[in-house]
Amino acid sequence: MRLSLTLFAGLLAAHTTLAAPFTDEILSQGQQLRQHAMASNRAWNLLESLTTEVGPRLPGTEADRRAVAWAKAKLNTLGFDRVYLEPVTVPHWHRGQASARITTPFPQSMVVTALGNTVGTDPAGVEAEVVAFNTLEDLKQADPEQVMGKIVFINHRMERYKDGRGYSPVVKARGRGAVEAAKKGAVAMLLRSVGTDSHRFAHTGMMRYQEGIAQIPAAALSNPDADQLERLLKRGEPVRFNLKLSSETRREQISYNVVAEITGSTHPEQVVLIGAHLDSWDEGTGALDDGAGVAIVTAAAKHIIERNLKPKRTVRVVLFAAEEIGLIGAKAYKAAHLDRLDSLYIAAEADFGAGPIYRLDSRVNEAALETMDEVARQLAPLGVERGHNHSWGGPDVSILPDEGVPVAGLSMDGSDYFDVHHTMDDTLDKVDPDALRQSSAVYTLYTWLMANAEQSLRPIPLPQE
Amino acid sequence: MRLSLTLFAGLLAAHTTLAAPFTDEILSQGQQLRQHAMASNRAWNLLESLTTEVGPRLPGTEADRRAVAWAKAKLNTLGFDRVYLEPVTVPHWHRGQASARITTPFPQSMVVTALGNTVGTDPAGVEAEVVAFNTLEDLKQADPEQVMGKIVFINHRMERYKDGRGYSPVVKARGRGAVEAAKKGAVAMLLRSVGTDSHRFAHTGMMRYQEGIAQIPAAALSNPDADQLERLLKRGEPVRFNLKLSSETRREQISYNVVAEITGSTHPEQVVLIGAHLDSWDEGTGALDDGAGVAIVTAAAKHIIERNLKPKRTVRVVLFAAEEIGLIGAKAYKAAHLDRLDSLYIAAEADFGAGPIYRLDSRVNEAALETMDEVARQLAPLGVERGHNHSWGGPDVSILPDEGVPVAGLSMDGSDYFDVHHTMDDTLDKVDPDALRQSSAVYTLYTWLMANAEQSLRPIPLPQE
Ligand SMILES: [Zn+2]
Ligand SMILES: [Zn+2]
Ligand SMILES: [Zn+2]
Ligand SMILES: [Zn+2]
Repeated sequence: MRLSLTLFAGLLAAHTTLAAPFTDEILSQGQQLRQHAMASNRAWNLLESLTTEVGPRLPGTEADRRAVAWAKAKLNTLGFDRVYLEPVTVPHWHRGQASARITTPFPQSMVVTALGNTVGTDPAGVEAEVVAFNTLEDLKQADPEQVMGKIVFINHRMERYKDGRGYSPVVKARGRGAVEAAKKGAVAMLLRSVGTDSHRFAHTGMMRYQEGIAQIPAAALSNPDADQLERLLKRGEPVRFNLKLSSETRREQISYNVVAEITGSTHPEQVVLIGAHLDSWDEGTGALDDGAGVAIVTAAAKHIIERNLKPKRTVRVVLFAAEEIGLIGAKAYKAAHLDRLDSLYIAAEADFGAGPIYRLDSRVNEAALETMDEVARQLAPLGVERGHNHSWGGPDVSILPDEGVPVAGLSMDGSDYFDVHHTMDDTLDKVDPDALRQSSAVYTLYTWLMANAEQSLRPIPLPQE
Repeated sequence: MRLSLTLFAGLLAAHTTLAAPFTDEILSQGQQLRQHAMASNRAWNLLESLTTEVGPRLPGTEADRRAVAWAKAKLNTLGFDRVYLEPVTVPHWHRGQASARITTPFPQSMVVTALGNTVGTDPAGVEAEVVAFNTLEDLKQADPEQVMGKIVFINHRMERYKDGRGYSPVVKARGRGAVEAAKKGAVAMLLRSVGTDSHRFAHTGMMRYQEGIAQIPAAALSNPDADQLERLLKRGEPVRFNLKLSSETRREQISYNVVAEITGSTHPEQVVLIGAHLDSWDEGTGALDDGAGVAIVTAAAKHIIERNLKPKRTVRVVLFAAEEIGLIGAKAYKAAHLDRLDSLYIAAEADFGAGPIYRLDSRVNEAALETMDEVARQLAPLGVERGHNHSWGGPDVSILPDEGVPVAGLSMDGSDYFDVHHTMDDTLDKVDPDALRQSSAVYTLYTWLMANAEQSLRPIPLPQE
């Protein structure tokens, strides 16, 4: 289907310029933009500013409010046509203190971090024997007698891949482990960190409770601590563990999706959305997750402004609130704009570190594949290749295709992303300035082309599987 | 001098076997030992046991007592002729909790660790404006008015070298920074971590006070936090910092140098000492510092026992107490043995991680250089080259040459050592089993040769410089 359409388009192109996805002028302006972006420190400077002047920015906290203020002020200085806030009601989970230790047979402290949304423990901690499972599935299969009254340890090690596909098989245990453990009478759930590093940083991230199932405390052990616990358990004697968490859920707060636009010159009502999330976990400064994304998409739009170029469609930068605790800002965005989502020409999100970007995926009508293929050809000098047409778009954007919104996925090399993801160690020094610059250049050119493409991208194909 | 002696020895060797530093049998047994050691997991198993079953072992703590008990029990199982303890009175410094934050202009928490021996702060912390210096020397030169009432930040970055020579220029500020800051009226001293990594682990280590100078609290910032503080200061506004430490010095305790011997068959009164320190800092499990050393020297002796070989001299493994807080065990050892130090044929210490070992240095009489040169030739198949003859021997052993004791230095590749040195991240996963095995094989062969060498190594040359 795709091949024949491309062939048809090729034949058509021989007869009429109308069939070309982009005018020569747009392509030429795009390549100038690419060069401009590849000489720009804009993304780095934005990221340096956000991580230094705001730092960690957990939804619902005072730092979250400072992040919103930072974003609004910063976008206002950059020359956008419009900068505005859209309110989002966000939960406020408070981490508090976490401590943990083996009490017998070999007393020693352990590095843990509370999982997002967990309840706390008694001030004296919860203490019990540890029972280990290799996977969430093994826990589900276990005899409840084995688990009753114990602390469940899910010892599932994440594997490293460029595309981060080691994440999804393991992260289920983070979200669901406490519920499955509580169903069998466990008193707490410990998780081997969902991360690819071997440093004593535990990886936090969201966990969930289920109506009618006891809410037990849930924490992650750093990978070296999980190794240590595994070694202790292998010795065959019962291992007792004490976990103290002073985490709690506090009152809901108002946060904001922060939006900035370059108004389209020809089709202002059609919108090319490029997003990232402004919030971060609270232990690092959210440099890779997702300060980098904020910097990449903001710089992309700014590069267009700097070159005095006027896109035909509106370019909309959305810095989503509260992604980390359940796409709260994205869901609020979708709900608030539900009757106007057909104004979205295409949406994409940068939320996988600093790059570099190596592939363009998409989810557009098959008749419009030549547009996306041409975008990929234009991105080729930056090292980007053409990918598939069943992109999910990225976390916040992932809920839009259900409403028919076309999406693009600019895949970043995530080989090292899960070394620091959701840890104290997600700080500016982990960002490669050259990778960040390349990613921002890719978004710059992509955004320019999408804002000036000739074809409609709808209706989008149904999801695969 | 050295060349001509070697030449002379070579000429002599042509005429008489008496001049050979080792008999052929000893050399042949040594090479068999090398092969045996290179197939052994002994060092790894010892290290795994110590770091798992004891973990962190700060002098004076309950864990320190467990470490001594572990060592005694373990050495007893290994078939040494004698295992005994020598008491050492050790200070007991208690770390307590550390926390720190920027209060203005951009509030955020900072990762710090208390420096060993520091006093604590008020429960509310000490809070003041930060004044930064690039080096201890710059602080010494500073106008006291600049420093009075402030928190001094010494921002001296350590450089990475194979031989660790980046350490000594920076570590002076750790030991002496608080005194120099207090002399000018500072209220606390913050140090950029003495470490080569860029992770949010602060590096602890010993600091000192001086009689008559106010005792101000002293802590290290992780390198990323020091970077962050540097960026905040560059913005030009006053930066206020709050540091809370609940550290305190507690009552002295009794710890022990743990000693194990293979009695010499011909010269039992002559001793080849191989040492390491049993204690560790309290945040990691002391895998590289100095569990690896403990494992390397213990396995070296055990390899000789396993092969049923009888060294002519006594092989003495000394696991020193309380090295980290000022060579306390080594000083006690020297004091207790002062009238018998001439029984030490040669001493060496493994305290620079897990290896690999790349060079043999020595400090022996020049007439005995041919012995050390031959040891190096025997070690060559393990990748060891011959170094110089002004070795210091290693921390604990460094105080022995002043009493005329010959020493050897088996230099380890320390390129990565200061990434984890004195941090929470000094754990078993950081140890390369192959490097550890090679180091242990080097010590095995070295120890065998020294215990059977023909020449006297005394008197040793005076220190250079
Ligand atoms: Zn994210
Ligand atoms: Zn995240
Ligand atoms: Zn050491
Ligand atoms: Zn040390």
